[in-house]
Amino acid sequence: MTHALKPGDMIGVLGSGQLGRMIAMAAARLGLRTHIYCPDPGPAFDVCALHTIAAYEDEAALASFADSVGVVSYEFENVPAKTAAFLAARRPVRPGARALATSQDRFVEKTFLNDIGIATAPFAAVDSLDDLHAAVTRLGLPAILKTRRFGYDGKGQVMIRDERDLAQAFDAVGAAPSILEGFVPFAREVSVIGARGLDGSFAAFDVCENEHEDHILAHTMVPARIGAETARAAMDMAGRIAAALDYVGVITVEMFLVEDGGAERIVVNEIAPRVHNSGHWTIDGAVTSQFEQHVRAICGWPLGSPRRHGRIEMRNLIGQQGNGWEALLREPGVCLHLYGKHEARAGRKMGHWTKVTPEG
Amino acid sequence: MTHALKPGDMIGVLGSGQLGRMIAMAAARLGLRTHIYCPDPGPAFDVCALHTIAAYEDEAALASFADSVGVVSYEFENVPAKTAAFLAARRPVRPGARALATSQDRFVEKTFLNDIGIATAPFAAVDSLDDLHAAVTRLGLPAILKTRRFGYDGKGQVMIRDERDLAQAFDAVGAAPSILEGFVPFAREVSVIGARGLDGSFAAFDVCENEHEDHILAHTMVPARIGAETARAAMDMAGRIAAALDYVGVITVEMFLVEDGGAERIVVNEIAPRVHNSGHWTIDGAVTSQFEQHVRAICGWPLGSPRRHGRIEMRNLIGQQGNGWEALLREPGVCLHLYGKHEARAGRKMGHWTKVTPEG
Repeated sequence: MTHALKPGDMIGVLGSGQLGRMIAMAAARLGLRTHIYCPDPGPAFDVCALHTIAAYEDEAALASFADSVGVVSYEFENVPAKTAAFLAARRPVRPGARALATSQDRFVEKTFLNDIGIATAPFAAVDSLDDLHAAVTRLGLPAILKTRRFGYDGKGQVMIRDERDLAQAFDAVGAAPSILEGFVPFAREVSVIGARGLDGSFAAFDVCENEHEDHILAHTMVPARIGAETARAAMDMAGRIAAALDYVGVITVEMFLVEDGGAERIVVNEIAPRVHNSGHWTIDGAVTSQFEQHVRAICGWPLGSPRRHGRIEMRNLIGQQGNGWEALLREPGVCLHLYGKHEARAGRKMGHWTKVTPEG
Repeated sequence: MTHALKPGDMIGVLGSGQLGRMIAMAAARLGLRTHIYCPDPGPAFDVCALHTIAAYEDEAALASFADSVGVVSYEFENVPAKTAAFLAARRPVRPGARALATSQDRFVEKTFLNDIGIATAPFAAVDSLDDLHAAVTRLGLPAILKTRRFGYDGKGQVMIRDERDLAQAFDAVGAAPSILEGFVPFAREVSVIGARGLDGSFAAFDVCENEHEDHILAHTMVPARIGAETARAAMDMAGRIAAALDYVGVITVEMFLVEDGGAERIVVNEIAPRVHNSGHWTIDGAVTSQFEQHVRAICGWPLGSPRRHGRIEMRNLIGQQGNGWEALLREPGVCLHLYGKHEARAGRKMGHWTKVTPEG
């Protein structure tokens, strides 16, 4: 194995949120140590061997971070390209620059997907109000205007229903380089979380069905209500995407399930080059968690089994919902996870719980 | 709830080994932070928010450790009584002084067990070679001479088969205060791991069947090969012991299963006032792990469900066996745990693996 790590080695993670925290905990199970790098302290700091508080532009800090680790990964897709390139010159960065560049820009991402034969919503680049008028003429309404970069949890996007609202919509996204996406009349939102190893092997967890509230994931059920053949096709799609990006690590593909008459089809919404909230159930509900799977992949180790222990229900605890921890501790069969965040701000992910029901 | 902690609070743990490490990781799942206190650095340091390196007699260090935490626990039973008392004057120490005093001395422990009506091997205190002669006359041979204090993994004990070997045997235990235990012709070794909450509630995991090699646990199977009624009796026994000690936290009771003709009976071997190697399978194989159960109990929180996910096989990786990690990562369905120890010394616990097979 090229650039494989050994137990006792240190992995590096950019970002100190709950995803970095759960990556560090999975690494620790396997005898690895974690160095978290972030401009701000966060919940991952409590469970790692080393941490660095420094800007993503601080090359001295980045260099000493790189020196201390065997591989670099990240918990969020908006890692600056320059930071990734600086680190990649010193240590393997997994997933690599191509995955970051593709997923950081919605136009690049959808173009890439269509190029490898994967369906997305119809889309058009919008750099000006004139572009927006032309795009609406071509795609029709309703449609969604989204900034090309730095959107998450519904931030940087606006639904357009009326042709008179175009100027206001373009203002709402800050007149930033954007894309207009045609509306997809989907039956359900699903996601596929898979991992690609350094040797090209691929393993996906079963398709997750997701419900959002206020654009934030609220609830995941597995298995999704989806036909077996469509599910297989969705998992294959994730594998093709990962292979085309020469990907190493866990990849998440968010999809729309569309029902046309009796037939199901998949439209890919977006790629997250990282572990994902809709995969948190794997900690309690699968032989290998998405976090361990990611650690195995970036270390150049064989992937683990994604087998489920049963039917899965996962719910996020958003904002004040985190205060319900005591009642949840009393709920039989509920596996509670809290992220150690002190302030329960609105929209903030404070924790989640998972329930696994054995299947007959 | 009296002295209950809240998520975000800090727990204190004495000892920096793999048990402290896994307690800290379970605490982190629940949004708690951990402060590890130990004279020597160890694998727990890599996953905790704070650590202190200081002697167990260093009162200044102990006082500032106590100030930083909401509750104190430990990963090993040989916590000096003075240390426990010093800490208990400042913060709740769970399990408490009574559990420590009872489990630190084999004579006190067996006397306590017999007093509450629980069978042990026949035993006699041995403070001199004369005592040993008298004890052998009373209990017969073979018998086992064990130091009253500080024994673990077979250290400080010697089997006596021949009356001519008494002086040599007493030398072998360093002529320390000891007990002679009559030999129990057991069919199997089993253990019960249970937890008692601050409110007196008790929950036990299913009985574990254990195999030792060179006095070190090698292998645990769950369920144990034991009758349903005997298993219930064994679990009840652990609950009675915990109640009699006014115990808070996870308690482990090691037992011998004796088959007399067709009938089974339980003889208690010893009590460990802590999480236990034979319960490591609960991380992957139960709704609540023994580590989370311990954290819930010492925080004054409700206990979780001890339900198993299936049939369990757990194997320790001792010494050089830890080097087999790469092959184990490839083994389908194996959940591998490594403790981050750098040197694979003989007899050293480097990790373990668990396999959970769904039951029909």
